[in-house]
Amino acid sequence: MLGVALIGAGFIAEYHLAALRRLPGVALRAVVSRDAAKARACADRFAIAEAGDSLAPLLARGDVQAVVVATPDDTHEAVATACLEAGKAVLLQKPMATDSAACRRMIATAARTGSDLQVSWMHRHFEEVEEARAWIAQGAIGEVTTIRLRNATPGPDWGAWFFQTARVGGGVVLQLGAHGIDLVEHLFGPIAAVSARTATLRPRRRLASGEEVAVGNPDSAWATYRLADGIVVSHEMSMIEAAGCDRFRMEIYGTEGTLWLRSERGRLAAFAPRRLGARGWFAPTLPEAPLGERHHRSWIAGLTGGATEDTALAGLRGLLVAEAIARSAAAVGRETVVEPA
Amino acid sequence: MLGVALIGAGFIAEYHLAALRRLPGVALRAVVSRDAAKARACADRFAIAEAGDSLAPLLARGDVQAVVVATPDDTHEAVATACLEAGKAVLLQKPMATDSAACRRMIATAARTGSDLQVSWMHRHFEEVEEARAWIAQGAIGEVTTIRLRNATPGPDWGAWFFQTARVGGGVVLQLGAHGIDLVEHLFGPIAAVSARTATLRPRRRLASGEEVAVGNPDSAWATYRLADGIVVSHEMSMIEAAGCDRFRMEIYGTEGTLWLRSERGRLAAFAPRRLGARGWFAPTLPEAPLGERHHRSWIAGLTGGATEDTALAGLRGLLVAEAIARSAAAVGRETVVEPA
Amino acid sequence: MLGVALIGAGFIAEYHLAALRRLPGVALRAVVSRDAAKARACADRFAIAEAGDSLAPLLARGDVQAVVVATPDDTHEAVATACLEAGKAVLLQKPMATDSAACRRMIATAARTGSDLQVSWMHRHFEEVEEARAWIAQGAIGEVTTIRLRNATPGPDWGAWFFQTARVGGGVVLQLGAHGIDLVEHLFGPIAAVSARTATLRPRRRLASGEEVAVGNPDSAWATYRLADGIVVSHEMSMIEAAGCDRFRMEIYGTEGTLWLRSERGRLAAFAPRRLGARGWFAPTLPEAPLGERHHRSWIAGLTGGATEDTALAGLRGLLVAEAIARSAAAVGRETVVEPA
Amino acid sequence: MLGVALIGAGFIAEYHLAALRRLPGVALRAVVSRDAAKARACADRFAIAEAGDSLAPLLARGDVQAVVVATPDDTHEAVATACLEAGKAVLLQKPMATDSAACRRMIATAARTGSDLQVSWMHRHFEEVEEARAWIAQGAIGEVTTIRLRNATPGPDWGAWFFQTARVGGGVVLQLGAHGIDLVEHLFGPIAAVSARTATLRPRRRLASGEEVAVGNPDSAWATYRLADGIVVSHEMSMIEAAGCDRFRMEIYGTEGTLWLRSERGRLAAFAPRRLGARGWFAPTLPEAPLGERHHRSWIAGLTGGATEDTALAGLRGLLVAEAIARSAAAVGRETVVEPA
Repeated sequence: MLGVALIGAGFIAEYHLAALRRLPGVALRAVVSRDAAKARACADRFAIAEAGDSLAPLLARGDVQAVVVATPDDTHEAVATACLEAGKAVLLQKPMATDSAACRRMIATAARTGSDLQVSWMHRHFEEVEEARAWIAQGAIGEVTTIRLRNATPGPDWGAWFFQTARVGGGVVLQLGAHGIDLVEHLFGPIAAVSARTATLRPRRRLASGEEVAVGNPDSAWATYRLADGIVVSHEMSMIEAAGCDRFRMEIYGTEGTLWLRSERGRLAAFAPRRLGARGWFAPTLPEAPLGERHHRSWIAGLTGGATEDTALAGLRGLLVAEAIARSAAAVGRETVVEPA
Repeated sequence: MLGVALIGAGFIAEYHLAALRRLPGVALRAVVSRDAAKARACADRFAIAEAGDSLAPLLARGDVQAVVVATPDDTHEAVATACLEAGKAVLLQKPMATDSAACRRMIATAARTGSDLQVSWMHRHFEEVEEARAWIAQGAIGEVTTIRLRNATPGPDWGAWFFQTARVGGGVVLQLGAHGIDLVEHLFGPIAAVSARTATLRPRRRLASGEEVAVGNPDSAWATYRLADGIVVSHEMSMIEAAGCDRFRMEIYGTEGTLWLRSERGRLAAFAPRRLGARGWFAPTLPEAPLGERHHRSWIAGLTGGATEDTALAGLRGLLVAEAIARSAAAVGRETVVEPA
Repeated sequence: MLGVALIGAGFIAEYHLAALRRLPGVALRAVVSRDAAKARACADRFAIAEAGDSLAPLLARGDVQAVVVATPDDTHEAVATACLEAGKAVLLQKPMATDSAACRRMIATAARTGSDLQVSWMHRHFEEVEEARAWIAQGAIGEVTTIRLRNATPGPDWGAWFFQTARVGGGVVLQLGAHGIDLVEHLFGPIAAVSARTATLRPRRRLASGEEVAVGNPDSAWATYRLADGIVVSHEMSMIEAAGCDRFRMEIYGTEGTLWLRSERGRLAAFAPRRLGARGWFAPTLPEAPLGERHHRSWIAGLTGGATEDTALAGLRGLLVAEAIARSAAAVGRETVVEPA
Repeated sequence: MLGVALIGAGFIAEYHLAALRRLPGVALRAVVSRDAAKARACADRFAIAEAGDSLAPLLARGDVQAVVVATPDDTHEAVATACLEAGKAVLLQKPMATDSAACRRMIATAARTGSDLQVSWMHRHFEEVEEARAWIAQGAIGEVTTIRLRNATPGPDWGAWFFQTARVGGGVVLQLGAHGIDLVEHLFGPIAAVSARTATLRPRRRLASGEEVAVGNPDSAWATYRLADGIVVSHEMSMIEAAGCDRFRMEIYGTEGTLWLRSERGRLAAFAPRRLGARGWFAPTLPEAPLGERHHRSWIAGLTGGATEDTALAGLRGLLVAEAIARSAAAVGRETVVEPA
């Protein structure tokens, strides 16, 4: 049995716990949150015995080998570092941190302690993403030339910290765009150069709690990326959309066809005459695994012996691209090179 | 009876003639093309008596009061100027010319001769565009904050000149993007500043005729626009798309809702709880007028006494924005101000 | 040049004339209607010289070799017979007549005079129908087992006669269902036996003209058919639908897949793993020929030497099935055998 | 705490347990199945302590107040009766039994013992069904005139008993059609008369296990219903569909509009100009509750004091309609009256 605990009882906690509890060989041991009542309520929903507001007792437990860190972004480094030092494997919610320097320090800590450090890239594990990757690899759409990507939601109106520059400077780029940046690099390789524009188009917003907050960081961003191999990507990010996007929408254009993910044509749609033998749109039937199952199975498999992708390096890459977006936006759009990891 | 002639018997000729022949009070008199056989074939399809390869006899006819100029872009100025000087009203195919200076000269010629000069903006007259404009005016989606626009086709593979820098330097920006630029300014007002990237991603292509040509001008472009009133627009243009876009796809985001034009949800789809009294997507039933009917009726009405929009000024604006795109792309993305008309 | 005239200037006239005028080798000579003003207006829309309210002059013309008969159903026999006797080839609007006996008499007249008699089955020529037929023939969905078919519209509220039992007893079965009956037999072979229910669910209706009429014949019908080879078909017909059906909607179920025509998945959609090599829905790109072009080209080709299908026999079959529907409905649903042609 | 047990560890067990485990105040106590290993595996997936192959110990437990009976249809009466006699509240999987007499006996037993007896009608609780009911009640589509309904799946190929006449004579009518029959009566009131056709179109089939079985009961059925208030319903049932239907598809036609459930326009789509103020299709945003949550919450609420609908009477009604379908099919389609409950 692998003992797992969750640190942070916010919105994303449900995603991790619902998936982990279905996995054989995993025992959910505890939930920790700064708010003890939230920790208790969350633990009760998943029949987890232990709940509390203190990290120390958790780190001392011998029957907890791995933790999911899902606290606010600006606390990631402190929490993850403590866990790594205590010998726990860590799955860290994205964005990895609020700047690339913190990412580098955590990676160094993991290397020194020998504790496993991963970043949680849930989008990679969606069935439509895996299926699209397979179609591209088979040459179904020829050579990929351009990508069109949007990450948009009405906004994370369940917490004030999302909108505070002092806590998370990147705004929509780190909150939503990080998913898209990782998808692009995961599927198509490193982003070499960035041109970007950012804006705060809704300067005040009302949270779900009724509280009205000032928005200090960008809620909208537009970037184009040049990849190492010549592909051009356009990437929109928005936290002020009333409706339209279901987490992300990705359009992949190739010399011989087109793939759309999460469009109105279905979770995946392909115009791929070369593969299908006919012109037209095809929406493959995808497996309907519960959300997060493939993701967490992959994490657990990696911890218990299997090979995994280096998702911590991808965590650092996400910050480096976000920092390039900020630099280009500050230079009113002038293209800037992404710093190497 | 208003006598109308067509100059240029290429791809777009059918669009104009099919619509004009349905209008009461319009008599189609002649088709002129450099290729006399093409002029004859085109005239025959619409039972037009006269066809030829010379402009002079046409300009001398007293029973032709108006002409549609649909020749290659780099001949627009010479042909239109001759027609205006001969006292003919001119409907000029977009883009108006290949640079803004030519546009200014034609506008001056029209002013001096008193001949009416219009540019053919077919997209303005699509039912979904007119309906979207009405919804926005009624406040159905609140204040518009951002626009997402794509103009893409597999490419105009029916003529080599489209891809020759010496003839039409703007490439995809003038061929396809001009439609989107006009839609944005028509619906939302002037574009103040531009940040852009362009590329030629398919450097050689095979025409429908089988001929292979080198591509000298951009076949792909990405721009963001700041409008005078703060709206931000992203605009993609592509002539290398295998499938996906039906002339254009436009997404309009407002503080209270979303409008999509030409998406898989229908020609127009609205998420507009404020107007509909419920959350969800609505696809209004649109009138099914034959393509081009509203457009040409509007032109004829303008000529015969009604008021019209100044579409020649919009023709100039299109070139000014295209030139700003080229300047910003040359400055690797740095935002540049659009020169005033 | 084949000289063609149209008899009947109602709703369907536009369909025939718009298609015929595009065909090379066809000259539109005249429009005849009981209402001379309607004939004139219709002729003007298509630049046809002659218009009138009398059949005799038309029948006497030597430069008219073929006529389209598009008058009310209960006048079909008299008009078509006169034309056949005058040596004209006839394309008769569906339903062929109001009972099978009239159909048999017209077929006999055609045989005796040697004049060509065809019935206008426009649905057969839709691209999605032809494409579906090809997929089935290739075994893309295995053996066909069942068909689900709906013909529905808000109703033909442009004429009172549609709703009068004395004139057209079959109601929705003849007006709309006839299309579906022909499609079934055209694609899958003869209907052997019928079980049916009919109803008049909107006993009074307001015409487009404002006039309110009593409805004497069925506006709703439900039938199941057993085909000669064991396929079972369900067929719904409605003239009281507010929205939902675009002329027809047909679902074809086979042992290995499914084909849908005119559904929200597209004009044709196929679930055909055997052919596509993958599970999922595919919407083939269909040619976009103008409505009616293939239909009328096929008619003209048949007249000028090519072979044609025997659409007059299919006209008779339509009435025989409609009569079986009426018999079964009178026997409160008991299955009845279709009388042989 | 209400102690609940599950009897029957087949396909549908997951549906009930996943929902029940989320409900506060419910404790899952045991799983019983004839196959002890299946019971154990099922209990483990939901962390339920007790699993076994014998009913008696379960009935003897004082801490189990309610049971879900999800055994094969022909065992429903014996199992449910034993539970009712032991004082347990029973939620019985549909169809209630294999004939109406058994339904009447169970209802009598419940009345005599005072134990609560309900039948599990999961479809009633889908959000689209509840929302459609609200729209109809508000008059959004005027008076309902006709319903078009399809229940179809590729077939329950996970058990041989589904296809054995001796065990479940009704075949597709009881397995799938029962859902549709209940939806019709739940939304629109009692079915008065039935005309039907049934067939076995795939006489042999291969189960998921690889075993090939002969099919004794109907795998396809077509019925039309007259409701007490004049609405006409067509209802198709199929267990041989390769693809097309997602459990059910229901089209509701009214004098002023149309509602579609589970179509390609969305889980619910409305053409309802009267309510929306515009013509067009609207797909309301529906709450995304986990499957079964509303259903089981409603059951538990009924047991613990709230009022419930009489779903056992509806269970009997389902059998009475199924029996009328069989009678009409035996009379080659002749309409037959449904026996009163």
